[in-house]
Amino acid sequence: MTESSISYTDVLIIGAGPSGLMAAYWMARCGVNARIIDKRGTKVFTGQADGLRPRTLELLDSIGVVHRVLHEACEAAEFTFWGPGEDGRLKRQEQHPIHDVNNSPFGNCLLNQGRIERFILDAIRDCSDLEVERGVIAESLEYDETLENRGDAYPITVTLRTLSEEEANSSSTHGGSGGVRNGLFRSNITPDDWDDLIKKSKERPGNVETVKAKYLIGCDGAHSWTRKQLNIPFEGSTTEHIWGVVDMVPITNFPDIRRVCTVATEHGTLLSIPREKQLVRLYLPLQAADSTSASLDRSSITLDMIRQKAKEVLRTFDFDFKVCDWWTVYQVGRRLASNFTKGRIHLAGDAIHTHSPKAGLGMNMSMQDGFNIGWKVALVAKGVARPSILATYELERKRTAQMLIDLDRRLQPLFVKEQQGDAAESTAPGNGKETLMDLIQLSIAFANGYVCYYGPSSLVHKGGEDIAANLVPGERFPPAKIRNQADGQAWWTTRLFKSDGRFRIVLLAGDLRHRDQRQRIETFSTHLASAESVLQRYRPEGEKLDSLIEVITIHSAPVGEMDFPDFPEMLRLFDQERGWAYDKIWSDDDCFWDRQCTGKGYESWGVDRVRGALVILRPDQHIGWVGNIEDVDEMTGYFEQIFQPPQKTLKVESNA
Amino acid sequence: MTESSISYTDVLIIGAGPSGLMAAYWMARCGVNARIIDKRGTKVFTGQADGLRPRTLELLDSIGVVHRVLHEACEAAEFTFWGPGEDGRLKRQEQHPIHDVNNSPFGNCLLNQGRIERFILDAIRDCSDLEVERGVIAESLEYDETLENRGDAYPITVTLRTLSEEEANSSSTHGGSGGVRNGLFRSNITPDDWDDLIKKSKERPGNVETVKAKYLIGCDGAHSWTRKQLNIPFEGSTTEHIWGVVDMVPITNFPDIRRVCTVATEHGTLLSIPREKQLVRLYLPLQAADSTSASLDRSSITLDMIRQKAKEVLRTFDFDFKVCDWWTVYQVGRRLASNFTKGRIHLAGDAIHTHSPKAGLGMNMSMQDGFNIGWKVALVAKGVARPSILATYELERKRTAQMLIDLDRRLQPLFVKEQQGDAAESTAPGNGKETLMDLIQLSIAFANGYVCYYGPSSLVHKGGEDIAANLVPGERFPPAKIRNQADGQAWWTTRLFKSDGRFRIVLLAGDLRHRDQRQRIETFSTHLASAESVLQRYRPEGEKLDSLIEVITIHSAPVGEMDFPDFPEMLRLFDQERGWAYDKIWSDDDCFWDRQCTGKGYESWGVDRVRGALVILRPDQHIGWVGNIEDVDEMTGYFEQIFQPPQKTLKVESNA
Repeated sequence: MTESSISYTDVLIIGAGPSGLMAAYWMARCGVNARIIDKRGTKVFTGQADGLRPRTLELLDSIGVVHRVLHEACEAAEFTFWGPGEDGRLKRQEQHPIHDVNNSPFGNCLLNQGRIERFILDAIRDCSDLEVERGVIAESLEYDETLENRGDAYPITVTLRTLSEEEANSSSTHGGSGGVRNGLFRSNITPDDWDDLIKKSKERPGNVETVKAKYLIGCDGAHSWTRKQLNIPFEGSTTEHIWGVVDMVPITNFPDIRRVCTVATEHGTLLSIPREKQLVRLYLPLQAADSTSASLDRSSITLDMIRQKAKEVLRTFDFDFKVCDWWTVYQVGRRLASNFTKGRIHLAGDAIHTHSPKAGLGMNMSMQDGFNIGWKVALVAKGVARPSILATYELERKRTAQMLIDLDRRLQPLFVKEQQGDAAESTAPGNGKETLMDLIQLSIAFANGYVCYYGPSSLVHKGGEDIAANLVPGERFPPAKIRNQADGQAWWTTRLFKSDGRFRIVLLAGDLRHRDQRQRIETFSTHLASAESVLQRYRPEGEKLDSLIEVITIHSAPVGEMDFPDFPEMLRLFDQERGWAYDKIWSDDDCFWDRQCTGKGYESWGVDRVRGALVILRPDQHIGWVGNIEDVDEMTGYFEQIFQPPQKTLKVESNA
Repeated sequence: MTESSISYTDVLIIGAGPSGLMAAYWMARCGVNARIIDKRGTKVFTGQADGLRPRTLELLDSIGVVHRVLHEACEAAEFTFWGPGEDGRLKRQEQHPIHDVNNSPFGNCLLNQGRIERFILDAIRDCSDLEVERGVIAESLEYDETLENRGDAYPITVTLRTLSEEEANSSSTHGGSGGVRNGLFRSNITPDDWDDLIKKSKERPGNVETVKAKYLIGCDGAHSWTRKQLNIPFEGSTTEHIWGVVDMVPITNFPDIRRVCTVATEHGTLLSIPREKQLVRLYLPLQAADSTSASLDRSSITLDMIRQKAKEVLRTFDFDFKVCDWWTVYQVGRRLASNFTKGRIHLAGDAIHTHSPKAGLGMNMSMQDGFNIGWKVALVAKGVARPSILATYELERKRTAQMLIDLDRRLQPLFVKEQQGDAAESTAPGNGKETLMDLIQLSIAFANGYVCYYGPSSLVHKGGEDIAANLVPGERFPPAKIRNQADGQAWWTTRLFKSDGRFRIVLLAGDLRHRDQRQRIETFSTHLASAESVLQRYRPEGEKLDSLIEVITIHSAPVGEMDFPDFPEMLRLFDQERGWAYDKIWSDDDCFWDRQCTGKGYESWGVDRVRGALVILRPDQHIGWVGNIEDVDEMTGYFEQIFQPPQKTLKVESNA
């Protein structure tokens, strides 16, 4: 009774969580023939991850949905530390800012993972008809290495099985006490149900489909089926630390219940995170690694045990809750996949790294993984970019994953120590030991995504410090709010540099009121117009000149002292139907009606306001190269390493 | 074959344009049994109105959709004036700011009416299942005045007819040149098709339904069928001025094409408005009132005539377009309905006032009409408020409508004069005549909605200047960004004061670090808790204490020097399920991560930072009354005039 068929897709994505959806966004945006499956019958609606770091919000800005996040999310701008005072009563001991307005337009936000997924799904729908195929599971994977180097080949063969509605939703039924939705079925304490699902599913007639794919991205979580098929070791260990997590509406007189805070007591350290819709998330230690008490029967943990623990920690305040949105239990484990990539198969998100959720980085790292691999696979699958760029994925993301796990490892004892009664010692500042605040301050730039330490590669040409001290190849372009020359409106660069699959040449044009500088810009524009320029050479037949590489000009003169038509035509490309491109010329000018637009972009980038600089941005807004405006050969060299050689050279023009 | 039935609704709204939808929002939000019909089969998608003033954006903030508007709209922050220079070539003569950051969080935005309608429809859907019934026309209206004073009666009888799909969409088919959608079918030059539709519809079998309603709101446009049924005169006249309007993507080297500007030449004055999606809207005079040329055959006007006119005006620049989104032609007319209300029937929007669109106020005024009548009808229909408050609708909105028409009358000659060749004379500043800029500056506070001149009534008790110099009863509450005491987040008051149908007591609590002031606040809170307080007296049986009136506290001490539990319990109402109300205590404190949050609210309101003030806000955020914190009798008196007397007094408590 089993129906079988073979179909073909360029890219198959397994798993529609944050990392899978981010990867899928690129396929949708770049028009890649792709499919994305998820074994669950529905997306998540409650619980799971909730922390959004500034860099993630910048990415969400670049895909056009950050306004929806900010409207719904709870912003966490300050962090407070509580502990017992001399009288034993809990006291607020320190308060620190989290939000760093000088580094990003965005702060730290909290919002349920389900909403984030919704926004990415909407962004996908806005530019394609790609839909997540839910209730679909992969049950076999073959990879033919001999086909790996043949661009048109489909080396990957996956058998997909459509689950029955019951199978797709069985584990996500309500559980826990009082019908509260709990997350135990996704908890890392519960064994994964993938094999069970396959076994059960095989017993009944159902749709089985063989899919041949050029590329596969496995975003199927900590128990990753894809990773297992590839026999990639998942290195690390699971500790005995068991934590409870609960999303609830608190009934308490604890004054910082709507602030991010820790409460360190001899009963353990509670981490409290304010959320949307009056919710608060609490993390509570239920058993320490070296607990002398009898080992917990983990399956016996109930919501009430978590409630009691919270009451113990907050004992000098009233605390309880009646409304619980979600809860789960997890055992702290830290694992890192030894490889992120095998041939044309890539893994992302929890499939390659697991750690405790307390750093509030999990969803961020996963989305950034999916974002990183997504555009690379999309451009390679389209035949635009060379397959060699795919090797940069592991290079770039494994280092950040390792750093995340290291951070988590250093964070954990700061929560556990308190459990052993030395709370005052470990959280008091200046006692010589690493405190939570020390660690937060040390790691904040990494955790917030201001730095990511991407190493040199074909996509990252290091250098240019003398030209732009703070534009570091490999790092993201530091956001600034700048003004459009044609209409005067102020936009963050995170919105302007849309994630649309294009590389960008950002011409920091300096001050064109200086005659010499104008000459330099005109020379550069003349180069762009020539047949040798990368715009002309890599322009796909029949497409617009800016379809692969967009040139954005940000000059430094006041908007009011320049006019849009003053700029060379190549910088504001003319279109027969739509006229001049008004969205290409910008000024680092301040703006009387927008206090965020300060005209300090050049300063923050470390670029001379008269002479400017030339910058290449990758499709993910990371800096690929920095040079002088004359360095067109180097600029060209960058793209030569990335793009496939032009199929048809414009012989007539180039030889003219 | 005609099916006939009788159904009942509390409120019937005829017309689902901006005014009808705003009224419908209140019905949805307040849970009123209501229906809304529209004769067209679909909402508008292109053309029509596009200008959004700050006050309208504030309203859209209060219904939770402004973030979507700002994401899509084009902001117009500056206005430039062009005219011929000495050499006859067009020159930029003046540039003026439009956006006044000290008066509103929002500037002037441009976005197609269809999108605004979409956002309001989504807001309606978020809180109810009220849907616009499209392709439905009213064909008879009876009003039984004898039932007017009986609260439960249905004095209004309307026969509704469901149009065929063809009828509902016939006029909105594509027209004009080259398949461009034009707006001639909605233009005031085309005769209204309502009677035709009814006549045609009667010839075929169809659903006819008799609806009995307690209240009717007619939002059915300039040709308002409702107004005609009531025999309400529409006073004013139509001039011979004929203008063309076009939404197109310009192909031009005119440098200010993405800015709001006028270009005044002997060929007439062009008004150019930048829009979303690369669109620009142009207004062009096609015939002046006193033109000596032969009268235009208006039906013969084509898109190319508008194009040619634009080319003439912009003659020293290249100008053309290939992409046209919408165009129409209108004849300037100014009319005002002599009454806005008859018994339980109210009119709103273009049904009561028409004028030229050039002031960019039409959609704003219409939405504000619908917003004003909507909450009043909703609260009366629910039996919460006294029917007498409905009389304030005409009182409040007729004056603004008259002011709008006066403004339009003064604006028109400034566009027409130019046509007669004296451009330089009329636009040059300082020549003793009223210039466009003079008029804009004179009218800006009214046009942007910073002032609205609502007169004294049961809803507006004048006075309180000595307590709060800039909190003027009748005007809107001047927006400020303030910080939540519990979480430190900064919110605009326009978002905090949600349009949810509740009145608000805004306790500007002053500085509670002063012992005397704390005592005043505690006394006030004790009053609130007493059985005599308006919260207790008007609390509907079984509902929460803040279901009709919400108390919001805004104190003036720094957030860091107070704690949420420091405030009296009545100011942060406890709920058995959801704990304390963290959204009720705010501080006028500045905020290091938000440059808009300056801690200057009290200053802008003219309120003493120590002693504070007591303010009543109506559900539309207009100030109803201002007093001292001790003036609870006056405060109570305000509500006594508005709310229906309590059905069941809390005898036990009040006599205890």
